[in-house]
Amino acid sequence: MNRLFRQFSFPGGIPSHVAPDLPGSIHEGGELGYSLSHAYGAVLDNPDLIVACVIGDGEAETGPLAASWHSNKFIDPRTDGAVLPILHLNGYKIANPTVLARIGDDELNSLLEGYGYRPYLVSGDDPEIVHQQLAATLDRALDDIADIQYEAKAEPDAPRRDWPMIVLRTPKGWTGPHEVDGVLVEGTWRAHQVPLAGVRTSPEHLAQLETWLRSYRPEELFDDEGRPVPRLLDLVPEGDRRMGSNPHANGGLLSRDLKLPDLAEYAAEVPHPGAGPHEPTRTLGRYLRDVMRANEDQRNFRVFGPDETSSNRLEALYEVTGKAWNAGVLPTDEHLAVDGRVMEILSEHTCQGWLEGYLLTGRHGWFSCYEAFVHIVDSMVNQHAKWLKVTSKLPWRRPIPSLNYLLTSHVWRQDHNGFSHQDPGFIDHVVNKKAEVIRVYLPPDTNTLLSTAKHCLASHDYINVIVAGKQPQESWLDQEAAELHCARGLGVWPWASNDDGEPDVVMACAGDVPTLETLAAVTLLREHLPELRIRVVNVVDLMRLQPAAEHPHGLPDPEYDALFTTDKPVIFAYHGYPWLIHRLTYRRAGHENLHVRGYKEEGTTTTPFDMVVRNDLDRFHLAMDVIDRVPGLAQHAVEFRQWLIDQRTRHHAYILEHGDDLPEIRDWHWPVQEGTPS
Amino acid sequence: MNRLFRQFSFPGGIPSHVAPDLPGSIHEGGELGYSLSHAYGAVLDNPDLIVACVIGDGEAETGPLAASWHSNKFIDPRTDGAVLPILHLNGYKIANPTVLARIGDDELNSLLEGYGYRPYLVSGDDPEIVHQQLAATLDRALDDIADIQYEAKAEPDAPRRDWPMIVLRTPKGWTGPHEVDGVLVEGTWRAHQVPLAGVRTSPEHLAQLETWLRSYRPEELFDDEGRPVPRLLDLVPEGDRRMGSNPHANGGLLSRDLKLPDLAEYAAEVPHPGAGPHEPTRTLGRYLRDVMRANEDQRNFRVFGPDETSSNRLEALYEVTGKAWNAGVLPTDEHLAVDGRVMEILSEHTCQGWLEGYLLTGRHGWFSCYEAFVHIVDSMVNQHAKWLKVTSKLPWRRPIPSLNYLLTSHVWRQDHNGFSHQDPGFIDHVVNKKAEVIRVYLPPDTNTLLSTAKHCLASHDYINVIVAGKQPQESWLDQEAAELHCARGLGVWPWASNDDGEPDVVMACAGDVPTLETLAAVTLLREHLPELRIRVVNVVDLMRLQPAAEHPHGLPDPEYDALFTTDKPVIFAYHGYPWLIHRLTYRRAGHENLHVRGYKEEGTTTTPFDMVVRNDLDRFHLAMDVIDRVPGLAQHAVEFRQWLIDQRTRHHAYILEHGDDLPEIRDWHWPVQEGTPS
Repeated sequence: MNRLFRQFSFPGGIPSHVAPDLPGSIHEGGELGYSLSHAYGAVLDNPDLIVACVIGDGEAETGPLAASWHSNKFIDPRTDGAVLPILHLNGYKIANPTVLARIGDDELNSLLEGYGYRPYLVSGDDPEIVHQQLAATLDRALDDIADIQYEAKAEPDAPRRDWPMIVLRTPKGWTGPHEVDGVLVEGTWRAHQVPLAGVRTSPEHLAQLETWLRSYRPEELFDDEGRPVPRLLDLVPEGDRRMGSNPHANGGLLSRDLKLPDLAEYAAEVPHPGAGPHEPTRTLGRYLRDVMRANEDQRNFRVFGPDETSSNRLEALYEVTGKAWNAGVLPTDEHLAVDGRVMEILSEHTCQGWLEGYLLTGRHGWFSCYEAFVHIVDSMVNQHAKWLKVTSKLPWRRPIPSLNYLLTSHVWRQDHNGFSHQDPGFIDHVVNKKAEVIRVYLPPDTNTLLSTAKHCLASHDYINVIVAGKQPQESWLDQEAAELHCARGLGVWPWASNDDGEPDVVMACAGDVPTLETLAAVTLLREHLPELRIRVVNVVDLMRLQPAAEHPHGLPDPEYDALFTTDKPVIFAYHGYPWLIHRLTYRRAGHENLHVRGYKEEGTTTTPFDMVVRNDLDRFHLAMDVIDRVPGLAQHAVEFRQWLIDQRTRHHAYILEHGDDLPEIRDWHWPVQEGTPS
Repeated sequence: MNRLFRQFSFPGGIPSHVAPDLPGSIHEGGELGYSLSHAYGAVLDNPDLIVACVIGDGEAETGPLAASWHSNKFIDPRTDGAVLPILHLNGYKIANPTVLARIGDDELNSLLEGYGYRPYLVSGDDPEIVHQQLAATLDRALDDIADIQYEAKAEPDAPRRDWPMIVLRTPKGWTGPHEVDGVLVEGTWRAHQVPLAGVRTSPEHLAQLETWLRSYRPEELFDDEGRPVPRLLDLVPEGDRRMGSNPHANGGLLSRDLKLPDLAEYAAEVPHPGAGPHEPTRTLGRYLRDVMRANEDQRNFRVFGPDETSSNRLEALYEVTGKAWNAGVLPTDEHLAVDGRVMEILSEHTCQGWLEGYLLTGRHGWFSCYEAFVHIVDSMVNQHAKWLKVTSKLPWRRPIPSLNYLLTSHVWRQDHNGFSHQDPGFIDHVVNKKAEVIRVYLPPDTNTLLSTAKHCLASHDYINVIVAGKQPQESWLDQEAAELHCARGLGVWPWASNDDGEPDVVMACAGDVPTLETLAAVTLLREHLPELRIRVVNVVDLMRLQPAAEHPHGLPDPEYDALFTTDKPVIFAYHGYPWLIHRLTYRRAGHENLHVRGYKEEGTTTTPFDMVVRNDLDRFHLAMDVIDRVPGLAQHAVEFRQWLIDQRTRHHAYILEHGDDLPEIRDWHWPVQEGTPS
C-alpha cells in the first residue's frame, strides 16, 4: 500500500469540467470520453506511476472511451507504468439508466475480459463495508500490477497478461437524500441533478438538507473553529504524496526540454528556387528520427498517428524505434515493438487522448494525421485549448509542451481518395479558440517545414497546427532563407517579384500548392505582360495576418500596409476555405482590394491539377484574377485572358482523354533566373 | 434464403469513400467508424429489413464503431428489422495489424459476447471452401434472426437475446499477388496499397498483373463481346431484389412526408413584445409530441439525443412514446419502452449514425444536443454534407428528409456548467460546407422557434442547424408576426425602432440572448438619448446575410442595403463567434461600418449576465458601442457613457457579493408601449 500512496495519481480520472485549478483534474472527461486514454498517456515512460482512472458508466457509452479500453495493447509493462481502470457503475446518467449497468454481470464481465482486463467487482450500499472491500480490492489489484510488471522484467518474451480493473457498483447519489417529495432520488438518475431544489422556499427541503449534511457528523470532523480535527489531518499524506500535489498532475514541473539537432544536416539543397523535387515530410521524418535518438536517454518524446506514420512518410523513425505493440505478433510483421515509441491505432480519439495525457505529464509529442480526418478530434482540441487558456493564468501551473499537429495528405493531394478526404477546415476550427494558444503554419516547402517543426517542438502551451504536403515538390528556399522567412512568418520573395517597391498587384500565397500555382501564374504573367509589376508575398505563419491587437503574432499595421499595400489589388491563393483570410484581415486597410482563392468544397477523384481548377485556384485563374483586378489591364490583356480560358478548356479535354494532367502542367518548373539566390 | 435475397441491403455496409453513385454505399465508413450505427438506423421501423453490415477490422478500432455495437440494446425485434454485423477480420489496416485480429479468439469472442452478440466464425483461405462456409453461416444467422423476431412477437416480455453476427477471417489481398519483388503481399498490410506499383515500367510486374487477372478465368465469365455469360446473369436477382436497386438504399423513393400539425395550438400568447416568460424548447416539445402522434401510423419519425431530451425540455414526447430500451429494466425506471421512438445513448456519434441511417432510408428525425458537444460529430456532419452536395446532382437519387439539429443548452446559458460547455462554433463548422445544403436559424423566442422547426421538418436534403435556448424567456412576436418574420428570415422590428426610415444607427441581433441584450440596450439609449434614431433588425436565418450569389437564401444587395444602410454604423449582437458575421458580409456595402459583438471565448462558472459582460455583449457595452460609433455622439453623451461603465463595475461588485445578477438585470422587461402590436 505504500506504493499506492506514493504514486497514485488521477490525471485523467476525475471526469469534471475544465477545472484547471484542481491539479488532479484534467478537462471534461464525461461527455467526451477520454479519461482512459489520458490515463494511458500519462503512464507511458513513467514506469513507477500507477494511474487509477475512474470511468463513469455514462462516459463509458461514448465512442472515445469505448475505443480506449484497448490501450492496454500498447503498454510495455517494463518501461511504462500502469493504469487501473475503475468503472464506476452507479447505474445512471442524466436521465436514463446506463447501458453497462443493465446488461447483466455475465455480459459485462465478458466485455471487460474481451477488452483484456481481469475485472474485480466491488458492490454494495453500506459505506463501511464497501470501503473495506474497495481497500482490499485495491490491494489485490496493485499486487496484480506488481506481478505483471515483475514477470515482464524477468521474462521479456512473456505474452501480454490481463491487467486488473475494478467494477465499483454503488448507488447514484449515495448517502444523499433517499426520497424527496415522495419520489426516490438515491439510486436513480434523479440524483444526477440538484436533489433538493427547493431549499430556499420549502421548509421540508431545508430540513432534509440539514439532516443530510448532519449525517456526515461534522462535529466529529471539525473543531470549534471549523478546522479539520487532527485525527483527519494525520491521514493526509505529506508533500508530493498528496494527490493534489502529485507533480505528474502539474507536468510542467517534471518537463525537460527536448534536445533538438541542428537542421543543417537535414536541409534540402536548394541552389535556386524550384530546385528539387524534395519530399517535405520524408525529410522531416529523418529529423524526427534524430530527435527521437537524441532524447532516447530522457525517454520524453513520442510520435502519434492513426495508422498513418508511414503513409505520411515519416517512416525514418523506424530506424531508431518501433511501433508500440503488445498484442500478437507474426513473423511477417515489421517495426512492431513492445517498447516502441511510435503510437498507432486507427482511432484519432485514442491517439489524441494518449498524446494529451503525455503532454499534461510534461513530455513531448508529435501527431501526424490526414488533414480531413483530424476533425474527428475537434471537440477534444476545444477542451485542450480551453484548458491551456485558463491554466496560463494560474501562476503555480508550469507550462507544458505544445500540442503539435502535422496535417498532411492534405486537401489538394487527396485527388486519389476523393471528396470525402478533402477538407481543410480544421484551421478554421482552431482559430476560434483563444489567440494566445493557437498557432497555424503553412510552410511552402521542405526547408520551411523543417524550420517550423523545430520551432514547434521547442515551444510550450500552444496548439501548433502545421499543414504540409507529403508529395515530392519544388523547394523555393535554402536553409538560411527558410529560417529567416519562418522567423518573420511571412515576406516578399524578391526573386519572384519585379515590383521594385511599386507593385501593380500583390500575389500572396499560403500553403504549398497555392504557392506553386501562384508562382506558375507569375511566370505566365511576366511572360505575357512583362510591364506588369508583381510582388509575391508568401505567408507561413497565418496568424501574422491578424491585427496585432487580436493575436500575439499579428503584424503591426504599418508593416502589413507596406507588404500588401493599402490600395493595390491583392490576389491571395490560400490553402483552405478562402473566407478565413477575410476573417483574419477584415480590419486591415485595403481589405476591399483583397481577393482570395481557396478550397470551396469542390472535389472528387481526379488529377491533382484538376483539384485546383475545380476550385479556381489554378495558375490560369489566378492570372485572370490579376487581369480582372488591376485597373486598366483588362482591355490591354484581352488576348492573353482568352488564352488563359482556353488553357482551362484544354485541361478539361486532356484529363478526360488521358486521365492525367497536361505535360506542361506536370513538367512545369520555375525558370532559373539570374539574380535568384543560390 | 429467399428472405435474404429479397431484403438484404447494405446501406451502411460498404466502407467506401463518398460514392453516392453506388446506391448501396453510404459515406466514408472506414476512418469515421459509423457503418454499424448507420445500419441500425436503417432497420428502425423496418421490421422486414435485414442489413448485413461489413465492418473492417481497422474501422473497428475507431471510437464511433466501438460504441455502436451496443445499438442492439435499442432494437425492438417486433417492430424493427435486424442488423447482421460481419466483422471482416482480414488482419491489417494501412500499415499495421489490427487489434482485433491479434487478441486471440478467446478474447475476441468474449468481447463480442460482451457486446451482446453470438459470433459465428468463418475462417479460411480457400475461396471455394470459405464461400460454402459463409453461405451456410448466413443461413444459420438468418434463422437465428427469424427465431428471435418470432419469439419476441410470441412472447412480448421475453428478455433481450443475443443477436447473431459473423466473424469472417480471410487474408487481406486475398487471391491477389502473393509475393511481389520477393516480399509477401497477400495476407499482409502491404495489400492495402497498390500491390503492383510498377506495371508501367517493370515487365515482371506487368506479367504478374496478367497472371493475377487471368486467375479469375475471364474467358469463363464473359463472352466474346465482353458481356457476362448467361450463367452469371441468371444469378442476378431481378428488380428491387438487386442490391443496387434496393429502395432502402435510395431512401427518397420510400419517403413519406410528415403530417405536421398547425402551430396555432402551441403558439405562445404574446399580447405585447416582452410577454411571457415562455420556455421555447418546452413549447417545442409539445409540438414534437404531436408530430410524433400524428405520424404514429406511418412510423417514420424519431427524436435522437445524447441523454438530453429531458434536459433540453422536450419531455412532452414521453406522453406519447417512450425511450427505446431493450436492456434490463427496474421498477423505478420511467419512460423506457422496447418500442420507444426517442433514441438516447450517451454517444453523439451513435445518435448521429442512427439518425443518418434513418434519414438515408427515407424517414424523418430530430437531433437535440447541447451546443458545445455537437462538435463531437463534426467529421460525420462533414461527410453527410458532402454526400448531400454530390447526390443532389444525381437525377435518379430522390431527396431525403433533412438532418435537423436543435442546439440548445447553448453557450450563453451554460453559466452553471462552465467554460468547457461554452462553444458556439458548430455554426462556423457547417457554413464551410456547400451553401446549397446548409441552413442556420437563430430564432429569438418561442414562436419563431416553432415556426422554424415546422419549416425544417418539412424540408429535404438540407442540414438545418437551429440554435435556441431552453430557459424561460421573453417572447417578442405573436404567432402571425413570428411566421412572417421567419418567412422573411430577418426584418426590422418597428415596435423597437424609432428611426422613421432615417436611422442614426442600426442595432442588429441574431440569437435569443443577443436579442435580449440589444433590446435592453435600446431602452437605455432611448431613455438617455431620446433624439437618437435607432433601427432594430433581427436575423433568424443567418444565411440571408450572405450575398445572393453565395447562398440560395442570400438577400439581394438592394434589400440588404435598405435594411442595414450603406453608411450608418451597424452594431451587431450575435450568438456565436463574432468574426463569422464578418465572413458572411465582407462583400456587402458598408461592411466597414459593421461592428460585431459575440462570444470571444471568455467564460467560466458564473451568472448568466456575467457571461455577456465577459464577452462585451451586454446591454451596457452595446450602448457604449453605439455612442462610440455614431458620429458626433461621443462628446454629447459623455455622462451617459460614464454611467454605462459604472453599471458594469456595479455588476462586478454585486455578483461577487451576492452570487446572483443585479435585480434590475434579473427583473428587466421590455416597456410595454403604445403602438406595439397586440
